[in-house]
Amino acid sequence: MSKDTANQLDRISHVVVPGTFDPVTYGHLDVIRRAKRAFPRITVAVAASKGKGGTGPAFSLDERVTILKEALEAEGIGPDIDVQPFEGLLIDFCHDLGATGLIKGLRAMMDFEFELQQANLNSRFAPDIESIVVMSSPEHSYLSSSVVREIASFGGDLSRLVPPCVAAHLEKKYAQRA
Amino acid sequence: MSKDTANQLDRISHVVVPGTFDPVTYGHLDVIRRAKRAFPRITVAVAASKGKGGTGPAFSLDERVTILKEALEAEGIGPDIDVQPFEGLLIDFCHDLGATGLIKGLRAMMDFEFELQQANLNSRFAPDIESIVVMSSPEHSYLSSSVVREIASFGGDLSRLVPPCVAAHLEKKYAQRA
Amino acid sequence: MSKDTANQLDRISHVVVPGTFDPVTYGHLDVIRRAKRAFPRITVAVAASKGKGGTGPAFSLDERVTILKEALEAEGIGPDIDVQPFEGLLIDFCHDLGATGLIKGLRAMMDFEFELQQANLNSRFAPDIESIVVMSSPEHSYLSSSVVREIASFGGDLSRLVPPCVAAHLEKKYAQRA
Amino acid sequence: MSKDTANQLDRISHVVVPGTFDPVTYGHLDVIRRAKRAFPRITVAVAASKGKGGTGPAFSLDERVTILKEALEAEGIGPDIDVQPFEGLLIDFCHDLGATGLIKGLRAMMDFEFELQQANLNSRFAPDIESIVVMSSPEHSYLSSSVVREIASFGGDLSRLVPPCVAAHLEKKYAQRA
Amino acid sequence: MSKDTANQLDRISHVVVPGTFDPVTYGHLDVIRRAKRAFPRITVAVAASKGKGGTGPAFSLDERVTILKEALEAEGIGPDIDVQPFEGLLIDFCHDLGATGLIKGLRAMMDFEFELQQANLNSRFAPDIESIVVMSSPEHSYLSSSVVREIASFGGDLSRLVPPCVAAHLEKKYAQRA
Amino acid sequence: MSKDTANQLDRISHVVVPGTFDPVTYGHLDVIRRAKRAFPRITVAVAASKGKGGTGPAFSLDERVTILKEALEAEGIGPDIDVQPFEGLLIDFCHDLGATGLIKGLRAMMDFEFELQQANLNSRFAPDIESIVVMSSPEHSYLSSSVVREIASFGGDLSRLVPPCVAAHLEKKYAQRA
Repeated sequence: MSKDTANQLDRISHVVVPGTFDPVTYGHLDVIRRAKRAFPRITVAVAASKGKGGTGPAFSLDERVTILKEALEAEGIGPDIDVQPFEGLLIDFCHDLGATGLIKGLRAMMDFEFELQQANLNSRFAPDIESIVVMSSPEHSYLSSSVVREIASFGGDLSRLVPPCVAAHLEKKYAQRA
Repeated sequence: MSKDTANQLDRISHVVVPGTFDPVTYGHLDVIRRAKRAFPRITVAVAASKGKGGTGPAFSLDERVTILKEALEAEGIGPDIDVQPFEGLLIDFCHDLGATGLIKGLRAMMDFEFELQQANLNSRFAPDIESIVVMSSPEHSYLSSSVVREIASFGGDLSRLVPPCVAAHLEKKYAQRA
Repeated sequence: MSKDTANQLDRISHVVVPGTFDPVTYGHLDVIRRAKRAFPRITVAVAASKGKGGTGPAFSLDERVTILKEALEAEGIGPDIDVQPFEGLLIDFCHDLGATGLIKGLRAMMDFEFELQQANLNSRFAPDIESIVVMSSPEHSYLSSSVVREIASFGGDLSRLVPPCVAAHLEKKYAQRA
Repeated sequence: MSKDTANQLDRISHVVVPGTFDPVTYGHLDVIRRAKRAFPRITVAVAASKGKGGTGPAFSLDERVTILKEALEAEGIGPDIDVQPFEGLLIDFCHDLGATGLIKGLRAMMDFEFELQQANLNSRFAPDIESIVVMSSPEHSYLSSSVVREIASFGGDLSRLVPPCVAAHLEKKYAQRA
Repeated sequence: MSKDTANQLDRISHVVVPGTFDPVTYGHLDVIRRAKRAFPRITVAVAASKGKGGTGPAFSLDERVTILKEALEAEGIGPDIDVQPFEGLLIDFCHDLGATGLIKGLRAMMDFEFELQQANLNSRFAPDIESIVVMSSPEHSYLSSSVVREIASFGGDLSRLVPPCVAAHLEKKYAQRA
Repeated sequence: MSKDTANQLDRISHVVVPGTFDPVTYGHLDVIRRAKRAFPRITVAVAASKGKGGTGPAFSLDERVTILKEALEAEGIGPDIDVQPFEGLLIDFCHDLGATGLIKGLRAMMDFEFELQQANLNSRFAPDIESIVVMSSPEHSYLSSSVVREIASFGGDLSRLVPPCVAAHLEKKYAQRA
């Protein structure tokens, strides 16, 4: 990005926090809280992911949006956070919304390398969209949706991983499967 | 950080961009520009570093502050960026200023691991100060002050690494030494 | 873990070496041998893995247990090593057995980051179970079950990768498929 | 290591926990506690390090041994931990003591890569000495002696980093220098 | 490899550039160009990959070979580059051709660790085949076939990622699917 | 590098293998042997390094060149390898020689990240010079000149680390110091 372009770019006020949220964890909520401290307007974008390895996500896109909204309310993060499903390219989604920042939380070096590649890719295609990282708390370093799903599938204790309302959804989901 | 604490924390408006800036490079300026897009008030904190390996920095603290101010003006990044020397703990410096965010630019995985440790350390001592990372352009991935100093010491071409006013300072510095 | 808790914890005598062992390699056997040097009682836990990417493991859980027992005997690692299949959460399996250590062998940095996350997760849920890593020999750094399966599937030479009894199982398995 | 050699090796009962301990931190004490859970006999080896970058350590070898002994007693880790200064090659030190295990605590990926190289080196020169890693708590991931010294040098709060008796030594040391 | 073996090994003149090429990107073409600068004879080996996660590749093996040949011609990389499909072990493929070098382009640290393991594995099985890495341009650091397929699937702009002839194949493929 | 530039670049025939060689190890000699398999003309460039941390190298530049020449002869790598001291920028040294390739051996991920930055830097300043990596044997993964110097300083066994003629120089050097 040349300096002239950069200098003319508007201040970032609306940012997108993207993810699959299958389901939302305390780690994700920590990132959204940190994003909210830094920017006045937040849209959480729930990806219509196909999942990894050919298997679909555990929760449908609608379920993931609903659970995330419930968790945001239950945790008091506020009604001013917009939650939307999205499909397609993230930069197109940002452009449609008029958002000019993408917020990610990093836990580990492998995350970082992936996000750096994504950020480089995005900066080629959409130099107006800034990629910004908030550093997660070390106590969330082990937390991921897949860890949560695995523990839920064996009936383990979810209380330190997800809010109670999310735990209830997981228990119902895995009770159906058993 | 408990959710109640986090939810009560004020919005971040004033952030610090710390560094040694020995001397400032196009990579640093890119980070400052990105920080300026995201936050209304920026202080660039120039550390009174002792250098690595017992050798002092190439430029004195005063020189590094002066060169950084010149570069910010020459690049049109603006007169509203505050530049200050600092010594001591970065979180004390932030508290004294009333700044509640620390902005770092990352180029590589080793940087990331170091910054994650620093961010974890800071979050223990000063949970009110958020650590935020902006992703550098890939074209700056090889750029560091030590690379710049090494090239300058052999009389190499600095034009793609630092602004002309910084190149002039480097040439003068290394001409003295030769 | 507070110091009082830690100080009251019993000495570790029984440890679990977990894995998928699809099939066991010389690398796994090296880890089990090293674990045996350090602890009096070893249970090798063979996970009822679903495999990665939706495809199941090459060998059934029963086959993987049988092959591992054969390999331990053939290599003279001893009849005192307990081998058991397990399903569910590893920490529950350890608690049921009364084991208080988990032994992993690391080959590479990506392994390490994954294991560190697992260790952090386990230490939250089961602070009484210690995660311990033995460093593999560099000559095993390239060895994994998936490499072994790939080479077996093309009829390659397995003699430096797995014991002869394991090679025989692989040849039979891939002859069936061809 | 051939299987015959490995199978003939005695069980590990005496292990060495090496370090510079300039000064000992809660992170080091956590590693020593974990080592004590796993092995009956522990020697903590305090290296006569020259420091990095040509500068010596902050505390002399004698001081570092004394402070470590005080901290072990103050934390109730026990009078049965042997603390010794050492100079020379670590594997020679182990051989002289009859110790057959080396215990390290890892915090980060860079640590891991360094320790893997050291472990490979040691396994060439002393195949009878096993390198074993205990995984540190995530709350210690940011803790290092150099962080502690830096914070002490600016008069920062040391209470979550080192035991009170170590903090007192640091305050005295840096008061002298100021 | 002992020094005598190494010293007797012939000079490398024929090298293999392996990959899945699903489809070929500007990043792959950059690697092939660099390989061509270094070695007189190049075979590009297109792997009959099963894809990751159980799903097959987007393009058939025949299509991937055809598209790669078209791209090499369109980019003027030359008619002297041999393109061949292969199945089985890469070192067997090299031996059949009489090729004694394997060329890989690396973009990131995770790539590196994987390639180092592969290189170690190959050096055990085929010490006559040298593993050689060419460093990709930073502007290709974000480029991968999976990124290209994802962007194509949403109708995004492919012009900076693949040659026009490859973009045409992608558009046709994803139009069929939609 | 645009495709037209790349396509016009001459084949690489002369390459430089740079290093500090303080002193040369079996790991370095492995890299030089591999470079010789790949390219007809090799110059080993011995850097007039200032050492790390303000301390100079253990051997003078003249000594390092002499020891390297002796080792190449003793190991039968051949009289056709050119050895030269150099000071200044490596790309200038290559240009002066007419060399168009730089060969590095990588042992670990941290090496890789550093070399990738260097390669990116060089490709900006000298797009005609290709950066090429040969993968070291795993048995050299722990080997570095600093490890060799440390072991020599304590009178340890050097026979698996450096050729006998290099060991003799080390013993003489460290006997003087003792």
